[in-house]
Amino acid sequence: MSVTSAAGPSSSTVANIKEKARRLRILSMMSTTAAGSGHPTSCMSAADLMAGLFFYAMKFDPKNPNSPDGDRFVLSKGHAAPVLYSALAEAGVFPDSRVMTLREVSSELEGHPTPLIPGVDAATGSLGQGVSVGAGLAIGARLANSPTRVYVLTGDGELAEGQIWEATAFAGHYKLDNLTVLADINALGQSEPTMYEHQMDVYRRKFEAQGFATEVIDGHDVPTVLAALDRAKATKGQPQAIIARTEKGHGFSQVAGKQGWHGKAFSKDQLAAAIKELGGGLDVPPDPGKSYARTSLPKRADFPAPAAPDYAAGKEVATREAYGNALKRIGAVNPRLVVLSGDVDNSTFSEIFAKAYPDRFFQGYIAEQNMVSVAVGLAARGVTAFADTFACFLSRAVDEVRMAAISRSNLSLCGSHCGVSIGEDGPSQMALEDLAIFRAVSGSVVLYPSDAVSAERLTEYSARRDGITYLRTSRPKTPVLYSNDEKFPVPGFKVLRQSAQDRVTVIGAGITLHEALKAADQLKSKGTPIRVIDLYCVKPIDGKALAEQVQATAGKLVVVEDHWPEGGVGEAVLSALAQTGSAPAKYRHLAVGHMPHSGKPEELLDIFGISARHVVDAVTALA
Amino acid sequence: MSVTSAAGPSSSTVANIKEKARRLRILSMMSTTAAGSGHPTSCMSAADLMAGLFFYAMKFDPKNPNSPDGDRFVLSKGHAAPVLYSALAEAGVFPDSRVMTLREVSSELEGHPTPLIPGVDAATGSLGQGVSVGAGLAIGARLANSPTRVYVLTGDGELAEGQIWEATAFAGHYKLDNLTVLADINALGQSEPTMYEHQMDVYRRKFEAQGFATEVIDGHDVPTVLAALDRAKATKGQPQAIIARTEKGHGFSQVAGKQGWHGKAFSKDQLAAAIKELGGGLDVPPDPGKSYARTSLPKRADFPAPAAPDYAAGKEVATREAYGNALKRIGAVNPRLVVLSGDVDNSTFSEIFAKAYPDRFFQGYIAEQNMVSVAVGLAARGVTAFADTFACFLSRAVDEVRMAAISRSNLSLCGSHCGVSIGEDGPSQMALEDLAIFRAVSGSVVLYPSDAVSAERLTEYSARRDGITYLRTSRPKTPVLYSNDEKFPVPGFKVLRQSAQDRVTVIGAGITLHEALKAADQLKSKGTPIRVIDLYCVKPIDGKALAEQVQATAGKLVVVEDHWPEGGVGEAVLSALAQTGSAPAKYRHLAVGHMPHSGKPEELLDIFGISARHVVDAVTALA
Repeated sequence: MSVTSAAGPSSSTVANIKEKARRLRILSMMSTTAAGSGHPTSCMSAADLMAGLFFYAMKFDPKNPNSPDGDRFVLSKGHAAPVLYSALAEAGVFPDSRVMTLREVSSELEGHPTPLIPGVDAATGSLGQGVSVGAGLAIGARLANSPTRVYVLTGDGELAEGQIWEATAFAGHYKLDNLTVLADINALGQSEPTMYEHQMDVYRRKFEAQGFATEVIDGHDVPTVLAALDRAKATKGQPQAIIARTEKGHGFSQVAGKQGWHGKAFSKDQLAAAIKELGGGLDVPPDPGKSYARTSLPKRADFPAPAAPDYAAGKEVATREAYGNALKRIGAVNPRLVVLSGDVDNSTFSEIFAKAYPDRFFQGYIAEQNMVSVAVGLAARGVTAFADTFACFLSRAVDEVRMAAISRSNLSLCGSHCGVSIGEDGPSQMALEDLAIFRAVSGSVVLYPSDAVSAERLTEYSARRDGITYLRTSRPKTPVLYSNDEKFPVPGFKVLRQSAQDRVTVIGAGITLHEALKAADQLKSKGTPIRVIDLYCVKPIDGKALAEQVQATAGKLVVVEDHWPEGGVGEAVLSALAQTGSAPAKYRHLAVGHMPHSGKPEELLDIFGISARHVVDAVTALA
Repeated sequence: MSVTSAAGPSSSTVANIKEKARRLRILSMMSTTAAGSGHPTSCMSAADLMAGLFFYAMKFDPKNPNSPDGDRFVLSKGHAAPVLYSALAEAGVFPDSRVMTLREVSSELEGHPTPLIPGVDAATGSLGQGVSVGAGLAIGARLANSPTRVYVLTGDGELAEGQIWEATAFAGHYKLDNLTVLADINALGQSEPTMYEHQMDVYRRKFEAQGFATEVIDGHDVPTVLAALDRAKATKGQPQAIIARTEKGHGFSQVAGKQGWHGKAFSKDQLAAAIKELGGGLDVPPDPGKSYARTSLPKRADFPAPAAPDYAAGKEVATREAYGNALKRIGAVNPRLVVLSGDVDNSTFSEIFAKAYPDRFFQGYIAEQNMVSVAVGLAARGVTAFADTFACFLSRAVDEVRMAAISRSNLSLCGSHCGVSIGEDGPSQMALEDLAIFRAVSGSVVLYPSDAVSAERLTEYSARRDGITYLRTSRPKTPVLYSNDEKFPVPGFKVLRQSAQDRVTVIGAGITLHEALKAADQLKSKGTPIRVIDLYCVKPIDGKALAEQVQATAGKLVVVEDHWPEGGVGEAVLSALAQTGSAPAKYRHLAVGHMPHSGKPEELLDIFGISARHVVDAVTALA
């Protein structure tokens, strides 16, 4: 092990930081013992680093802890939440007593951090995401010409997560010199020692290879910690890593450096012994019960109406291309719009935006997890962030989207190339589960346009909406169905074919809507008129309005979708109907029922049972 | 750039490999031009490496290309499929003419490789997964004392994927010296140059930091390639990386090293020019149309009945602990069982297995993507692979599970700590979308036990089943409901409370089943008997049998689940009923409707609307 040491700042400063670190350790232990659960030993390895950050390095205003010009802190090792809460308390954001409400149902101080807590920008607790969020915050600061510096504290267990190496490569590539990563290398994971234990030089080499200015320090030697923070702040042109050798449970000899103490609160007797060893306790009065939860979270900026879509009716345009056109139109009127792509912007068509606004486009390369979490970091600074890739590859970032929802993040995602209609590339490139995934995101809106006009209008909707919005686009070119001034409310659907004689309602979206329309023409000529619905908004659904349509065809319903049978349009419709006390009297569900194959799009639509021919058959069976 | 050169083998060998490389380039171009799509330039950068592998380094029997003692090859950059198919053809697995059926719907040679193709072990095409699969194959070979060596070819674009760095760290940690990674560094991604272009030393440092014996070579100099392959084979004690500087489209000067040629087949005129430049074409006759698709894929080994569960009725045991007990019991009778965990085996309880059979337990550390793909590699060697972590963290590996399904892999996954019932740790640790995710996996079975006996029996079911099986376990201890000899068929459910007077059917699973049982007791005492169903198998569901139960209570149905409303038990039930032409007459769905919070499990069940009290209210509203 190679340890950098340095003279460091004045002895009174050092003494002050040491006392703060002592208090952070004690508060972390007291609060977890009071809660009966939590991770005190993970807090204790980080306490000196945290004290150095909050009481020496960071520009932090406890009266405005989420100030856009203040420095930001991301606790990537979210299970060490009590040490963060203790630091916020000691900094004056809330009283020490508030920390003692840890994990109570009535407290904003949850088991892992969320942005409802002042000073927190994104939820953590799923490991390995914090550096990406920090990179997003750092880019956001750069775009805003803000002096903000971003600090991220990681554990060592989480350095096994690949996303860490996506994020550090990204930060190195974009030379984010306003980003400092502190790695708390305590050598013990949850179940056993970490892969590299205290092989500090392995970590050093890894971070250096990512383009980080890297130093290895003793993470419990306060002067060394402060000097390293000073050097990091002075570094220009590259992000910095401070790799700190630490001890899990440092400060309490009964547990320090020992296995078997992950995620265990101390007994009252142990707590008393620990406090004695640390030189005596804090006098924390009962908490008065006042909540410090943030009442206002970042919202997206409003923007004037962009130029309207401009498509001739019947012209063949892919919805993915319309998405790209919309981004460019919105970019012209919304300077806060920033777009990321996963090295497929020439397929998702965000390259149209990238060419028009290169300063607001960030290449995410083939690293979807990082891309999504960077967008969460950008959103926390009020940026209107979009991220896109093939829809199937967004399945790489489901955990990051889940955490984005817990972060109450405003995030627009677009997945292109859905379903078997992509054709020859085969199943590895086909998204057949994306609707199931994105419907099961708290508070999400799921949009699935069938033509260029709706794709543009729904992209604009996505850019205006707070929360997580998913837009599913298709690869093939499809005819323009709507006039350029058509509105697409959310929730909502369009009835594209209807008559008083309709025998069956057919719901489609995307490519299958066009199959349903072909089927309607064939059926009409055979004397079986059907109602055809474009369910461009898959979540939420106005179940009552939809039930009226289905009832108009005596409850006979066919749903046809380019998705697995589970969790997609069909189940969304059944669920929406059931919530209104309704149900189809007769029902056929056409979806992709078994593993697809390479082939021509039209061949695959037919083989996998979702072409016009199959719609005709299903209608005929019901009518 | 630092390039290693070497004397290399005889000139006739070199000439033979060069000719093979030339033929691979030509076949790759011909087949993509015939298909009208595909990635010829990505094949051409890799052709010399591929020729060196298949015709010099690898022990490969074209008559038995998936032989357990042969060497294995994984094309991590799956879009270069044509060069793999060309190599298989030139090796004699099928005739050259078969390559010309590339991407046709009737051909096994799909746009990206799948294990239906002889010599392929796992599907690729979602980038960054091949090294993990290769590591699984290498561990499988080691466990079987097989001389197999595993070769993985990656692109450089995909080296941005974090999973690559999870996998290489894992391979380095386990000192997999039977694994060689070849990185085809052609410097061009899909939409723009890669992050590091031809900075070969960056890649060298990255691989070295992971514990790889690493060398940088000129990937088009055949003697150098062969010498590097020789050195890799001779390396003991660590995996090897051959970092090859290459040129995209190498061999055809119109496109070589130029942007804008990713994923584009050449025109016929271009093809002719390219073939001329390469020294003349191949004479490929028309393909006779014979399929070479594998007819037999790896199956799990059968095993004798393990010791029966041994729980006293009413005893409180967490289903997660029963899973661990079952693994140990199965491990005693099935020597092919191998278990991985994501550094949470003391929470998922696979540590019970790990302690009993340490040689068959592999710590996956906190790297879920790699863990799942390693299991796919193990399964390809006939290992009965289980992988577990908190259910919420399996959302990190959705793409890997998706690819496992395309791989026709036999894979048992277990996710613990589902739902709000985990309590104080808060939403980042709660899986509320896992049923939606795993239901939307092709051919999956989704199991959700409510007591220890069913958890053990369903774990055994999972170990016997081919395909992907997901087991959802819960954190809290719950009473044993079933006798130790109870059977749990798939599909299936148990009716735990019933009478001829039942007013409403209530379906629960896991923790909510116990809430439903409490509600039934309360309601019975109030004169409202209900039917209570344990839906231990969420996919598939026998809709007809379930409909009979619901009809017995006049179609009145309550579903209660610890999951988001979307894609879980409720929608699975509605969908199963609808497929049989049935629907509930009156329906209430109790699920977690908004973002949860830290708190005590019982508090959260109540606040989020899925406790016994809410079941009573819902039943009362319907009855």
